[in-house]
This record gives sequence, structure tokens and C-alpha cells, in this order.
Amino acid sequence: MALNGRRPIGVFDSGIGGLTVVRALRARLPGEGIVYLGDTARVPYGSKSPRTVERYSIACQRFLLDRGVDLVLIACNTASANALDALRAASPVPVIGAVEPGADSAVAASRGGHIGVIGTLGTVRSGAYERALAARAPGATITALACPLFVPLADEGWVDADDAVARAVAVRYLRTLFERDPAIDTLVLGCTHYPLLRGVIAATARELTGRDLAIVDSASAMAEAAAAVRAALPTRVGEATAPGALACFATDTSRLDELAPRFLGEPVGGFELVDL
Amino acid sequence: MALNGRRPIGVFDSGIGGLTVVRALRARLPGEGIVYLGDTARVPYGSKSPRTVERYSIACQRFLLDRGVDLVLIACNTASANALDALRAASPVPVIGAVEPGADSAVAASRGGHIGVIGTLGTVRSGAYERALAARAPGATITALACPLFVPLADEGWVDADDAVARAVAVRYLRTLFERDPAIDTLVLGCTHYPLLRGVIAATARELTGRDLAIVDSASAMAEAAAAVRAALPTRVGEATAPGALACFATDTSRLDELAPRFLGEPVGGFELVDL
Repeated sequence: MALNGRRPIGVFDSGIGGLTVVRALRARLPGEGIVYLGDTARVPYGSKSPRTVERYSIACQRFLLDRGVDLVLIACNTASANALDALRAASPVPVIGAVEPGADSAVAASRGGHIGVIGTLGTVRSGAYERALAARAPGATITALACPLFVPLADEGWVDADDAVARAVAVRYLRTLFERDPAIDTLVLGCTHYPLLRGVIAATARELTGRDLAIVDSASAMAEAAAAVRAALPTRVGEATAPGALACFATDTSRLDELAPRFLGEPVGGFELVDL
Repeated sequence: MALNGRRPIGVFDSGIGGLTVVRALRARLPGEGIVYLGDTARVPYGSKSPRTVERYSIACQRFLLDRGVDLVLIACNTASANALDALRAASPVPVIGAVEPGADSAVAASRGGHIGVIGTLGTVRSGAYERALAARAPGATITALACPLFVPLADEGWVDADDAVARAVAVRYLRTLFERDPAIDTLVLGCTHYPLLRGVIAATARELTGRDLAIVDSASAMAEAAAAVRAALPTRVGEATAPGALACFATDTSRLDELAPRFLGEPVGGFELVDL
């Protein structure tokens, strides 16, 4: 792919889970330069108030805009659910959140219109998925549940489908979810960490319902949305990055070398430490 | 107790677990005014690098000093383990950390000199407990293990001794600990959240070893140390607080009303939101 002279795409997340979005983006748009920022000093956002999430998200976006990106992807579901409007209002370039593409995927996948959403406390409390799903499928039955233990479980690496702790946690949460709606046919993984637990979540759901659920996340739908927006943007020369270049920044570097490859699916070249 | 004209004691923590220290302090020094700060917007510190922990801890201490405290207690084990020297260097008043009092308690409790320490990744990685214990009991065998799941488990409220998830997590960690030293007779709960899990930790340790371990934490030893230091300080009039007054501040207010009473052991009058 030839040097395209384009400004990079910016992606931010509360931590490094957003590298799952970078992975999908690189698969869909291999020639694009990407700047990634993980706010690892202040992670997680999922347990915090909308006010704090918005304040930190604005600072993350400002960092990306200062790096010359011409499109911003909010990989973090909590930030997307609580700060999308504020981020769009503060950005001169297009901003894509995680919730709307995730809702598109869920509606496309659901055969019976019974959709479950699992995510952080902040994402669930915001009601953002319910609103996005209801707008797309007015007759759908939507059940959302916060699953705070899933993120530390993924960070600990206890993610195998037969891991005793992972199974016990998944049974506890999913049992509650299916008690609220036994007919759920589609499950939205509404947090960038949850795809690492896809195996144990799928196995537990099958065990509890006797059925195979459609399990969707936002990453590939976000990459599709980015491709559509990017195709419509004028080519802006200057501060261009090499095609396919990935520059990673983080506000704290603890465990990055160990954790980041799990989400990106390949080695990460290294993170540059920044203060916001 | 008469108005003592003294400045308040300052206590800070990465979150609200440090209210266990406030609880011990109020039991030991009921007449003293206390200013508490939880850095709940940036919690947890336990997974982050020493540099970030030090930076945030200095900001917390500065807030307390600006409120006129004449003694600072670092309730957070991670901050104590990684930033005590920097905090003492930056403070004009005495500073008490969590590690040294915790080590005192452990050495006093241990009959066989085999001491286990559990805490956050940041606390364990620092080696601070090992150094403090070795200085007090040069012949002791010390085994430290990070248990990252214990904090979100306590926040989720899954703390009963017969809770299936709590038991599965405790078995996973403690089995590793006892494999490294089967003769451990004393266990240090090196994180302010862990006392909420004391029951399940004790039951699991008994199940795995067939023995009752001594289980210690830093809270009451810190209160003893505070009483000793306070007794030696001159009475400084001005900006005095009412006896027994507790003023609580936090950088994010999410779930405070729900979680704080678990740690303080009584209702909390309310938190004032502050930016650091």
C-alpha cells in the first residue's frame, strides 16, 4: 500500500482493552496510521461517575487531537456511554463511539429480539445501550447487567473456558441475567475486556440455557464505521504517518508489555509514557 | 471530651478501604478530629507503577496539609510501600505508613517465624513488607503474593465465608502461597480491602493447612502509632476541629454511600467532592 499522506486515526481507551478495536481496525484498514492512547494511570473508568469519565475522556481526546488525528474512535464503552456527546461537541473531527456500532451488530444478530447487554457499572447505569437498541429495534426486549469482576479476571489471565474461578463468576452473573429474561438470544459484550472471556461466557450461557447464543462485541462494527467515515474524509496532507504505523501511548506503563499483546493479538512495539 | 484545640489528623487512601484505618483511629483516639481523603477517581493504585502511585500520593498529602492536619496517615498499603520516603520528604508534619505497623503486628503474632503477606501487585512488587519484616525478625521466612481479585470481590460484596466465588478465588491464591511455604503461621492482610474478606481467608487457610493462622492487618497498629506520635506533638491552636469530627473528601462519588459504611462500620455523614 502506497504512502497515503493521511493523518492517523486516533483511538483511546481507559486502559489497553481498546487494543481489540485497534486489531479490528488494522484488519479492515491495513494502510492507515493509528495513534492509540490508554489512560492506564486512571483505569478503570467503569466504576466511576459520569462526571469523572467525561473529564478524563475529554483529556484523552485532546491528546489525540494534538497529535493531528482526523478521526477519533472511543474504544472504551464506559466513555462512549457517558461522554459521547461531550466528546463530539469538543472535537473538530468525526468521533465514533462503541455503543452505536455494538447496537447495530446486536440487532443484526438477534433472531428473537431478546438482547442481553453486559458491561461495566458505568456503562449499564448510563442506559446508553438500551437507548441505542430501542432506537434500532423498538420491539426488542433488552436486559442489561453490570459484571465488574470480568475485567480483573481478564487482567489476571484466568480466562480459560474450564477455569474454575472464571466459571464461578460467569455462572453468578449470567444466572442473574437469564433469570431476568430467559429468552435472551443475543449477548452484547459491552466492554473491551470481555472478548477475552468469550469462551467461558459462551460455554456458561450454553450450560444455563441449553442454547447457543449469538455473542457480539463492538470492535469489528467500529472498524466498519471507521472505514465508512474515512472514505468520506478529504485527504489532508501534513504530519502524515507511514501506512500501517501504530504509535501507542499510555499514562502508566505497569504490566503493559505483559497485557497489551493479549488484546492486540500480536506483539506491541512499545508504549510511550505521557502525562495528561 | 473537651475541645482540645488540636489540628485534625489526616488520613488518605486510594479509595475508601482506608476507612478501616479511620475506624481504628476513632476507637483509639475518640476525641481527635479526622480529615479523610479517598482518591476514588483514580483508584486503584495497586495495579499501577511506583511513579504514578508516588505522584498521586503526593497530591493527596498536599490536600490534607492544606486542610491543616498535623499528622498524616497513609492508609493505602500500595502508597505506603511505594511512596513513604517521598511523602515524608514532602511533609512538614509526621507521616505514618501502613507497612511498618503491619510488620510490627505480624512479628508480634508469629510463633514460628513463617509469615505470609498478601496485597496488591504494587505492594508485593515493592518488597516493602519483606524489608520491614526482615529488619524486625532477621530469621523469619517471608512469602509475599499479589491477590488482585480480592479488591473487586470486596467491592462486589461477595465476601461471605461460604460464597462460592470468594472461596474459589481464595483457594486459588492461598494454595499458591502455601505451596511456596507450607509452614506459614501468620498472614498479613496487606491491603485495606482485605479485612472485609477475613472470614473467607481464614476459613480457606484452615481448610488448606489444617491449622488456624494468625491473621493481622495494619489498622489497629497504625492507630497505636498515631496515638504515640500525637501524644508527643505540641498542641497547635487554630483551625481546630470539634472533638471527634470526621470530614470526608473524595475525588469521585460513585457508590460511596453504598460502599463506605462497610469499611467505617457505621454510616458516613457524607463526602465532599474535590479535584486534585
